[in-house]
Amino acid sequence: MERLLEIRDGLLRGVGRLPSEHRAVEGAEGRVLAEAALARRAAPPYACSAMDGYAVRAVEAAAGGNLPVGQRVFAGDHPRPLGPGQAARIFTGGELPEGANAVIQEELAEERDGRVAFRRAVREGENVRHAGEDVLAGGLALPAGATLGPRQLALLAAVGVEAVEVVRRPRVVILSTGDEVVGGRTPDSNGVALAGLCRAAGAEVERIAAPDRLEAVAAAIEAAAARADLVLTIGGVSVGERDLVPAALRALGADTLVHGVPMKPGKPFLFAVLDGARVAGLPGSPSACLVAFEVFARPVLLTLAGAARPLRATLRLRLAEPVAGRPGRARLIWAALDEDGRARPLGRDAAQIRGPALADLLVLVPASAGDLGEGAEVGTWLLDGR
Amino acid sequence: MERLLEIRDGLLRGVGRLPSEHRAVEGAEGRVLAEAALARRAAPPYACSAMDGYAVRAVEAAAGGNLPVGQRVFAGDHPRPLGPGQAARIFTGGELPEGANAVIQEELAEERDGRVAFRRAVREGENVRHAGEDVLAGGLALPAGATLGPRQLALLAAVGVEAVEVVRRPRVVILSTGDEVVGGRTPDSNGVALAGLCRAAGAEVERIAAPDRLEAVAAAIEAAAARADLVLTIGGVSVGERDLVPAALRALGADTLVHGVPMKPGKPFLFAVLDGARVAGLPGSPSACLVAFEVFARPVLLTLAGAARPLRATLRLRLAEPVAGRPGRARLIWAALDEDGRARPLGRDAAQIRGPALADLLVLVPASAGDLGEGAEVGTWLLDGR
Repeated sequence: MERLLEIRDGLLRGVGRLPSEHRAVEGAEGRVLAEAALARRAAPPYACSAMDGYAVRAVEAAAGGNLPVGQRVFAGDHPRPLGPGQAARIFTGGELPEGANAVIQEELAEERDGRVAFRRAVREGENVRHAGEDVLAGGLALPAGATLGPRQLALLAAVGVEAVEVVRRPRVVILSTGDEVVGGRTPDSNGVALAGLCRAAGAEVERIAAPDRLEAVAAAIEAAAARADLVLTIGGVSVGERDLVPAALRALGADTLVHGVPMKPGKPFLFAVLDGARVAGLPGSPSACLVAFEVFARPVLLTLAGAARPLRATLRLRLAEPVAGRPGRARLIWAALDEDGRARPLGRDAAQIRGPALADLLVLVPASAGDLGEGAEVGTWLLDGR
Repeated sequence: MERLLEIRDGLLRGVGRLPSEHRAVEGAEGRVLAEAALARRAAPPYACSAMDGYAVRAVEAAAGGNLPVGQRVFAGDHPRPLGPGQAARIFTGGELPEGANAVIQEELAEERDGRVAFRRAVREGENVRHAGEDVLAGGLALPAGATLGPRQLALLAAVGVEAVEVVRRPRVVILSTGDEVVGGRTPDSNGVALAGLCRAAGAEVERIAAPDRLEAVAAAIEAAAARADLVLTIGGVSVGERDLVPAALRALGADTLVHGVPMKPGKPFLFAVLDGARVAGLPGSPSACLVAFEVFARPVLLTLAGAARPLRATLRLRLAEPVAGRPGRARLIWAALDEDGRARPLGRDAAQIRGPALADLLVLVPASAGDLGEGAEVGTWLLDGR
């Protein structure tokens, strides 16, 4: 396995999910289930018709059989039991009358003068949706770790779940470092991106900033760690003399698990634990910052949030253009998904700022890959918004 | 091209984007640009170093050259011009001093007693990021049709864009029909799903309901069309006697462009225009409802919203299990993306409600495909939330 991803997986093994809390389903959009949600009612709630047609006893409705139509059953109706030798007109979703055990679709039936004839026989159970066929009452609706998006909330509504145990939302403090940011000479665009990305991943976000002084950076990290589950620092994480984040963490007695990873961009990435909070040190160059977020910080955040699958799905796509390898380091490349479903790399530079904004994908070129030609297959992560 | 997608594309050709409005970037998250956003400042804003190292005049810094270090330049500093025969210590992102035209990385330099020696010569421009290298002042930051997610907002911040022309948010009214929904016998799970999906696509959403009476359905559609850009009706769209949506649209004099499409599930889908509003009639079975939304209604909504790419990206993946074709109709199948990057179909029934909630993908089996074996390649749409 790619060394970079082994490092990531090693960090994730040390991260657990946050405590849970009880919440009404209404208002739980975007939250992650801490426990499996069990159906309070079956779906479908009663045996019903899968077709517009006629509900019958299968044995009574041989081909050509001619039965009186005793009632009409629409979705939502409460039907009467089916009398012996009778049929019931029934529409999709209509509850199957007691006694009926099959539905003959209307295309195979002819109704005239209150009686219906069938062009062929029907098997027991045909065109019937049984109670609980999708979900049994008390059965599994959604597993722990599921994120409650619109389709998941709809399922919970359908099976009568009104409250769920969800994971507490992670608290993230984003600490932008650097005189150029504090002084306003450089807009804090990384802070804007990270705040939105963390919120999209379900976090509560606070943004702070510190100038290039060791005590200021240390004080900011300490304060952030005291109230955050995850602190994201931006800038000052390399080995230069103004790279104060590593020094501040040392001064605070933090446990630095990783400093420097075999990837480009984003090599200086740092990960530490301080007073139970995780601290992810992201580089200040926009592309490197967002690459390090995608590779490390977002999976950590989603693991804290309890998501069953904290990693983006990996898709194997072909490159639309050659890319140069970087022996010994994995390369992460922002790319667009072109019309032919291929990955077209965008831009070339760690500090490149349009790449992340135009990208559909992040391409991972393995450390061992060397140069890759057009058409080479690569692992890619599809980003949100496509 | 697949007939189903031809029908979709034909409908989309009749849909234009909504009017635009001027908005501060702050607060424009999720909106779509109606016009290209042009950079108010260059990125990078000035020539700067791509490395930690020494800024020099390339001609003065031959290999072994030994120059006095006149200043230290960090990101955010305003450097003094570079004196003749001098070097400046410079850190990543630091502004290049006037007169310097290259940076020698620190690994190739040795500084001692205020002077620096270099192990090799440097080419003009080496390790320098030029002003406007990513984006020129006045140049294109983001094109019209871009959706403003976190990475896009970061780019706008980086290039000084504070206000943008965005498309007005589409107004959607979701009309749930049927006595079983109005009477509360069946939870309106489709309404829950569609409301969330429409909001995620950028719309303002209102939900209403109407019982199974023609006048009630017609009055609800008319009222909805008067205040919506897109009306989504749920249920009652087939050809049965309680399928009142088509009849109500006829009674209202709507222009029905499509009723019935070659797909399973979702065959009864209807699309009409009434008083300038679009009306998409979705089936009531949960799976069919959400398939019809994905195939037709979501692209219509994103076209109204001005998105450059209203369609989900199509990925070609292999099937993890065989699927039965349905000659003459495209099949849409909810599927999970498995560990090997293959599409694993979920469930089998149009009314199946767990499928949409557990799916990562929607698989399109072409009408012409016949049965497909394990490993067959199919077009898929990756859904949100993966």
